[in-house]
Amino acid sequence: MPKNSKSNTVSVGLLQMSCDERPELNFKKGVSRIGEAAKKGAQIVCLQELFRSQYFCQTEDTELFKLAESIPGPSTDALSRVAREKKIVIVASLFEKRTPGIYHNTAVIIDVDGKIVGKYRKMHIPDDPLYYEKFYFTPGDLGFQTHDTRFGKVGTLVCWDQWFPEAARLTALSGAEFLFYPTAIGWLPGEKDEMNQAQHSAWETIQRAHAIANGLFVVVVNRVGREGNLTFWGQSFVADPFGRIIAKASADKEEVLVVECDLNKIEETRQNWPFLRDRRIDSYAPLSARFLEPSSTKR
Amino acid sequence: MPKNSKSNTVSVGLLQMSCDERPELNFKKGVSRIGEAAKKGAQIVCLQELFRSQYFCQTEDTELFKLAESIPGPSTDALSRVAREKKIVIVASLFEKRTPGIYHNTAVIIDVDGKIVGKYRKMHIPDDPLYYEKFYFTPGDLGFQTHDTRFGKVGTLVCWDQWFPEAARLTALSGAEFLFYPTAIGWLPGEKDEMNQAQHSAWETIQRAHAIANGLFVVVVNRVGREGNLTFWGQSFVADPFGRIIAKASADKEEVLVVECDLNKIEETRQNWPFLRDRRIDSYAPLSARFLEPSSTKR
Repeated sequence: MPKNSKSNTVSVGLLQMSCDERPELNFKKGVSRIGEAAKKGAQIVCLQELFRSQYFCQTEDTELFKLAESIPGPSTDALSRVAREKKIVIVASLFEKRTPGIYHNTAVIIDVDGKIVGKYRKMHIPDDPLYYEKFYFTPGDLGFQTHDTRFGKVGTLVCWDQWFPEAARLTALSGAEFLFYPTAIGWLPGEKDEMNQAQHSAWETIQRAHAIANGLFVVVVNRVGREGNLTFWGQSFVADPFGRIIAKASADKEEVLVVECDLNKIEETRQNWPFLRDRRIDSYAPLSARFLEPSSTKR
Repeated sequence: MPKNSKSNTVSVGLLQMSCDERPELNFKKGVSRIGEAAKKGAQIVCLQELFRSQYFCQTEDTELFKLAESIPGPSTDALSRVAREKKIVIVASLFEKRTPGIYHNTAVIIDVDGKIVGKYRKMHIPDDPLYYEKFYFTPGDLGFQTHDTRFGKVGTLVCWDQWFPEAARLTALSGAEFLFYPTAIGWLPGEKDEMNQAQHSAWETIQRAHAIANGLFVVVVNRVGREGNLTFWGQSFVADPFGRIIAKASADKEEVLVVECDLNKIEETRQNWPFLRDRRIDSYAPLSARFLEPSSTKR
């Protein structure tokens, strides 16, 4: 059986890092942290969003497209070797060059045999001050998926997707046991502490809610440290299928967090809170609308 | 202008009550609490789920269908008079008899002139130990709607709907500024305190998340007190469009909570966190599926 023998438990590793200006050093650090997590018993590890580089979307600069690489490519080749060597599943967020002019913010799922079992291209792309992602990333065209791995059914979403219950639901409906969110989110300069805390609370709350609504494990991996004008707020966490935070990293330190997840909790929670049973699928078609103008509602 | 002159503020009143075995006394209490809320400045008041009676769904008993009434009917007639007299918008949850054999758990929205401007029939019906609602309530067939009132655009959902992000989203897309949730939720006997707190936390968290995802005010009105085997947990609250709880009632006392809501916060929040801009409406059609079998996903 793929799981631990004594129970239906899977250990996930969250690699919360700070990033240097030199991609090769970040990559090396990521690989070394995967080793650390494996040593601590992790079976599925997740790296933060775009872990190979600093979060470059703070400016719009065509020079930065040089950071993109093909998938498969040098990074996935190296990570495949690590996965095989450590017998570990790796969720890695990369800047994908698909063809000149089409770049994606992509998460790759590599199984214990080193094979790429799936790829998720970030579907919801932000564009806010210091998060100019619409300049770099073509919106994903692979939809929402779950990938079978040796240690569990893995769904991946990326950062801004966090704010969209539709994304979490669709991934859950495709069978996910884990929803991984590689993330790069931080505080802007000069904000009041109260606003900073409110932002962090909203971010944590909505992701706990995805765990609750869908009865699965949510695993969020964020970076730490100051880069340019952003101070990344860390606080990577795991929420169980009832939305309880069962592990959480600090706001300012690099960490390798290894967390046991009991997969039996998924079915147990869904039997006690049978939300999936009661969805009114006959009435959800208008979710494909941008807005329901007053004239189109029954008043 | 319908709003307060000095700003774009609307005061909502949350009527958190305990219920007696005699419906006429509960109704009278409700009416008196509406008066209290009006005196405190409330412009839109919301009563808890099925406020005219105790929460009768703890057993399955055909005798209890006697509690149902037509809409319009005696309760809405009386509430319309109150609305007109107090110049207040009322959201009232009633047990609707539509025809023999078709009963609904319905929220009625009555405007300041006493007219029923809208009706929402609970779409998601629970069936859990002590919440045997599928026996009593035919699932709603009016979909998700927003109703224009003198004091704001009112969307209503009822209790179990709380767990479905789809319901909140569809109501928000129909233009709601407020999402009212009349509710009857409580603790089962003999549960550990830790589990009780986890349940309450999940309930509060997912509703705060609806406010965050949709950038609107969420207003939840729950009952208090012990009835049969359930201890209703109160803690009615208002969350602002950023998911911050701006007012919250106790777990065990009747309360008339009147809370100022600044409608400008809706647009301000949505401009800063432009989630509605970035929804991937080209990819949400599978939300109308019950489950996406592995063979139907791209693997």
